[in-house]
Amino acid sequence: MKEDNKAVILLSGGLDSTTCLSIAVKDNSSIYALSFDYGQRHKKELDCAKKVACYYNIEAHRIINLELFAGNALTDGNIAIPDYSSGNTIPSTYVPARNILFLSYALSYAETIVANRIYIGISSVDYSGYPDCRPDFVEAFQKVIDVGTKSGTEGDSIKILTPLLFMSKAETIKTAKASNAPLHLTTSCYHGKEKACGLCDSCVLRLKGFKEAGFIDTIEYE
Amino acid sequence: MKEDNKAVILLSGGLDSTTCLSIAVKDNSSIYALSFDYGQRHKKELDCAKKVACYYNIEAHRIINLELFAGNALTDGNIAIPDYSSGNTIPSTYVPARNILFLSYALSYAETIVANRIYIGISSVDYSGYPDCRPDFVEAFQKVIDVGTKSGTEGDSIKILTPLLFMSKAETIKTAKASNAPLHLTTSCYHGKEKACGLCDSCVLRLKGFKEAGFIDTIEYE
Repeated sequence: MKEDNKAVILLSGGLDSTTCLSIAVKDNSSIYALSFDYGQRHKKELDCAKKVACYYNIEAHRIINLELFAGNALTDGNIAIPDYSSGNTIPSTYVPARNILFLSYALSYAETIVANRIYIGISSVDYSGYPDCRPDFVEAFQKVIDVGTKSGTEGDSIKILTPLLFMSKAETIKTAKASNAPLHLTTSCYHGKEKACGLCDSCVLRLKGFKEAGFIDTIEYE
Repeated sequence: MKEDNKAVILLSGGLDSTTCLSIAVKDNSSIYALSFDYGQRHKKELDCAKKVACYYNIEAHRIINLELFAGNALTDGNIAIPDYSSGNTIPSTYVPARNILFLSYALSYAETIVANRIYIGISSVDYSGYPDCRPDFVEAFQKVIDVGTKSGTEGDSIKILTPLLFMSKAETIKTAKASNAPLHLTTSCYHGKEKACGLCDSCVLRLKGFKEAGFIDTIEYE
C-alpha cells in the first residue's frame, strides 16, 4: 500500500524526470507536477511533459511561465548548441540558477498545498556537468528549506528526493523499463525539433545510456 | 570612489529595500533592481519601487511576473490581513518560499549579467517573524550559491549582502535619513490602499520605528 504522501515533482518531459515520476507514483498517494516555460528552444519537452502527466493520471500538472534571462545556448537562438564534449567545463547550455529557481517554485507550491516531498530527477553521474545537479547542491538546498520555510522551522520540513542522483543513464533506463515508464513519450534533444539530433550532450548521453542498458530507444532521430 | 561592483537588488518599494538601495548606491558602480508582481494585494508597492528606482537613476529596473500560489493573506483576498500581533508565531501573511524565490531570481539575473553582489533588505530585528528573514537562512542560501552555480563553483561566488539584517526599524530609518533616502516615496501597508492602515504588522513596525528614531513619517495614514 502506498504511504499517505503528497508529492510535488519537477517534470521536464525528459527521460530522467519521467523515470523519477515512475518511482514517485509508487511511493506517494498524490502527485503534483510542475513544468516551466522559460523560453527554452526545446519547448517540445512541454508537450512531452503533458503526455507523461496524462499517462500517469496524476493529480495536477501546472506549466509555469518563467521569465528568465538570455545569454545561454538553451534560451538564446544566437548562441549555438554545442555537440557533445567529454570535457570537464560547464557547457554553454548552462542556464544560470535554473534548478535553484525550479526547486524554489516547487517548494513554494509544496508548502502551499501541504505536500511533504519534492522530487527532482537530477543525476550526478551521466550529466552535462551542471553544478546544480550534484549531491552537495541538493544538501545545501535542503538546508534552505529547513531554516527558511514555515514548515521547516516548525520541524516538519519538506524533503527533496533525488532517486536518480547516483544512477548512470543506463541504470536510469533499466529502472524506467522495469516499471514500464513511457520513455517513448519523452524528449531529450536540446534543439527541440521534431526528430532528435543525436549529437548534442543530451542526445549523446541518452543514446549511450540505451546502448549500455541493452534497450532500443524508440524516439525518432535525424 | 566607488568600487567597480555590479549589484542586483531586490526592491519591493518599501522602507527597508529603499534604505538598502541607498546603501548599495554608495558602494557599487551599477545597480540592477528586481521587483515582483506576485499577485500581492499591495500592488501599490510596485509603483513605489518604480519611483524609488527613478529617484536613484539606477542602471535598470525590471518587474517580474511571478505566478505564485494562493492560500496566504497577502495574495488571497478571502483571507483577512491580521492586525499587528506581538506573538511568536508566523503570521498568515507568510508567503511560502517568497524570499527563496526572489533570491533565486536575483541570482539567475546576477549570474546572467555578471554581477557580483545581491542586496536584500531583510531584517531579523523588527520583523514579522518570517523564517526567510533570518541570518541562518541567508547563510544557507549563500551556500546554495557557492555550490550550485557556475560562478560559485569556479571560485567567484556571487555574494548576498544584507546591510539591514541586524538593524532595528529605528536604526534603518536613521540610516535612511542620514543619506536622504526617499522614504516619502515608499509604502509598507499590507492592504495597499491609497492611505496606509496604520494597524497591520507592517504599518505598526514602521510607525514604531519612526517614533523611536525621532522622525516624522510623511506618508498618509487613514
